[in-house]
Amino acid sequence: MLQSKLFSKTVREVPADESSVNAKLLLRAGFVDKLMAGVYSFLPLGLRVLKKIECVIREEMDRIGGQELLLPAMHPKENWEKTGRWKDPGREVMFQFAGRGDREYGLGWTHEEIITPLVKKFVHSYKDLPIALYQIQAKFRDEPRAKSGLLRGREFLMKDLYSFHLEESDLDEFYNTVSLAYRKIFERLGLKALVVEASGGTFSKYSHEFQVLTPAGEDIVMVCENNRDFVAINKESARKTSLKNLCDFAQNREITDLEAGGKCPKCGKPVHAERAIEVGNIFKLKTKYSQAFNLAVKDAGGKDRLALMGCYGIGLGRAMGSIVEVHHDERGIIWPETVAPFGVHLVALQEDIQVRNAAKKLYEALQKAGVEVLYDDCENISAGEKLNDADLIGIPARLIVSEKSIGADSAELKKRAENTPQILKLKDVVKALGGSMD
Amino acid sequence: MLQSKLFSKTVREVPADESSVNAKLLLRAGFVDKLMAGVYSFLPLGLRVLKKIECVIREEMDRIGGQELLLPAMHPKENWEKTGRWKDPGREVMFQFAGRGDREYGLGWTHEEIITPLVKKFVHSYKDLPIALYQIQAKFRDEPRAKSGLLRGREFLMKDLYSFHLEESDLDEFYNTVSLAYRKIFERLGLKALVVEASGGTFSKYSHEFQVLTPAGEDIVMVCENNRDFVAINKESARKTSLKNLCDFAQNREITDLEAGGKCPKCGKPVHAERAIEVGNIFKLKTKYSQAFNLAVKDAGGKDRLALMGCYGIGLGRAMGSIVEVHHDERGIIWPETVAPFGVHLVALQEDIQVRNAAKKLYEALQKAGVEVLYDDCENISAGEKLNDADLIGIPARLIVSEKSIGADSAELKKRAENTPQILKLKDVVKALGGSMD
Repeated sequence: MLQSKLFSKTVREVPADESSVNAKLLLRAGFVDKLMAGVYSFLPLGLRVLKKIECVIREEMDRIGGQELLLPAMHPKENWEKTGRWKDPGREVMFQFAGRGDREYGLGWTHEEIITPLVKKFVHSYKDLPIALYQIQAKFRDEPRAKSGLLRGREFLMKDLYSFHLEESDLDEFYNTVSLAYRKIFERLGLKALVVEASGGTFSKYSHEFQVLTPAGEDIVMVCENNRDFVAINKESARKTSLKNLCDFAQNREITDLEAGGKCPKCGKPVHAERAIEVGNIFKLKTKYSQAFNLAVKDAGGKDRLALMGCYGIGLGRAMGSIVEVHHDERGIIWPETVAPFGVHLVALQEDIQVRNAAKKLYEALQKAGVEVLYDDCENISAGEKLNDADLIGIPARLIVSEKSIGADSAELKKRAENTPQILKLKDVVKALGGSMD
Repeated sequence: MLQSKLFSKTVREVPADESSVNAKLLLRAGFVDKLMAGVYSFLPLGLRVLKKIECVIREEMDRIGGQELLLPAMHPKENWEKTGRWKDPGREVMFQFAGRGDREYGLGWTHEEIITPLVKKFVHSYKDLPIALYQIQAKFRDEPRAKSGLLRGREFLMKDLYSFHLEESDLDEFYNTVSLAYRKIFERLGLKALVVEASGGTFSKYSHEFQVLTPAGEDIVMVCENNRDFVAINKESARKTSLKNLCDFAQNREITDLEAGGKCPKCGKPVHAERAIEVGNIFKLKTKYSQAFNLAVKDAGGKDRLALMGCYGIGLGRAMGSIVEVHHDERGIIWPETVAPFGVHLVALQEDIQVRNAAKKLYEALQKAGVEVLYDDCENISAGEKLNDADLIGIPARLIVSEKSIGADSAELKKRAENTPQILKLKDVVKALGGSMD
């Protein structure tokens, strides 16, 4: 795409009430726009990243047998009354309102109240189980504080997966399958997530959260310094240590009395307190919702049994915000290749006609080869500004077409060139294009 | 995909309050589920169709230079107060509610109030124009009557495109470009749409609607019997007539005093009154919203001028419902190839092990060749029931693997075979697979 035609532009100023790094960078680089606290628009660049995240998640959900569907955002009060959640937590969390004829609705912040009665319509026998259904869809939550950019929104995109089983062993097995799929998803998104025990609610001892360690996190995680994932995340120590036979202790501070420096209850090593963002969670609901909606299935003996359920969530916007929190420097975002809005950022550094022609040819050749290219063809913008913009936008593969060698331009440009994967001199481009400039 | 694993099943009964053909068929075939009046879930089969419709629309929007973004569904009251639409039409159309801290919100039923101030942030000069932005996103509308299945929902997916221009001639030109793109979209979706003049609101003489003629339509269209599209839609007469030099008169009854049998004001031929579904509309907004938000751009002379706007909508669910209304018979849906949930419906007609093996091999071969296949591998279901289900689901390319020639089975099956694009006998499958059954 031609950058001169791109709707968004990089901007210097961000709203005064915006304090999070992810929102500041995403706003400045033109990936998102803030409509109000906790509610963002995804501009063309941002939507491209969001769709890549969506694509990774969808692939891994399909791979474990998830079937995609799409449930409504607007829910009837009656469904939520059946589980008692219309009143508790009720309006603390849910936007509720009345329409024509005093019909009462709420906006979905989760979908157990919708998926459970839906599954009841099609699942009657053990032969229909297990089944795993997921969606990627907008959710709404009346957050008291919505000040962390994309990390905590009032309107946000979620992937939510729900699984249904007859046997507890089958639920356990699928829960582990999802856990592995989540690890794969976060790895592919460039997020090193720690698996952390959290409250299991009424029916399970623990649920599990996928936590990305960063000072921007709102959660506090108590993690054993010998924790396998923790060691792997802190590369320095990982090099020195075999990851086998390490500890797996990590808990959300909400469920433990442990303090930083305390002893790991599993291996006795010191426990660290780390700030983290919860990018995903998995939860065994067991019969909590199947009971409320009487979702019973016949077992092999013909006896009715309540289906066992699991639910598994990933926030897409939150994942995007987390990626920015961990992948940036003082110049801007540095997208992992897998989610970068374009495969290559091609920058024509000077206005010189030869540079322009070479860049244009390269643009066309790359597009023809199926590469997604953002081509900075803007005019009347200095080389320095162009490089600043490219640094801010953060597409990791960059091709810079310059009339001179970068080294010859200035010490400043030379320094930057070190961080730029590929700089093409005009003569190299000409050579790559077969020697002809016409 | 294996049909035995598919979440949805065909069902006999539909909700008693469901009277529309599209909803009845889509519910019975397992494409959608009804959560409440005007609000449907898209089940895996339905979501596949929806995504194909989305894909066609996206391709055509991208082709005319539209840039995709994603705007929020939840809007702040303030934006809608600027245009007066918070109060009028207000709650007649919009779901409005208050959240924490008495902050007031509305659910978007259109997005002029959001896109106009957004564009104001990035567009300052004539050099930034024209620009065309679109999204595919859930909209909400408190419909008084939501009884037409997917044709009129309280929550529904829309593609809405907004364009911004400096010169009226540029708006006019783009308006025509979109009109042509819409024709292409509806053609690709298997919908023969009539372009109909409708009310242009305060600023334009006419807007244009794309109307699909069907008895299920809620609109009445007054159309000249010599209308080019009308003649083309009624194939019989099209064969006899050259389409050149025909009339183009068609108006929504809402804006005309003409009655059926009256004279066409353009060519004098009789006018027909036809029921139709509005599947798309295009509208010149001119400066209506740029004025409300003071979206002014500098022209070449440095003078501030209000941007001219156009808006262009297509309802995705409504398009899906319309396709079903015009493409079905008494046995079920007959999807156009372009939007069928799968490329091929492979049906193993008998339980016989040889039939099963052959069908399985065929399934694998087709998948390997990149064909999307729904394979009916269900057990303990009669051949008649399987064919009934396949007829109901309506994938147009069907491969039936049968141990005997269909003709030998029964007169009933023979009759059906005439409407089935491809029936494979076991021996043909064996031959196609290279003669081996193992």
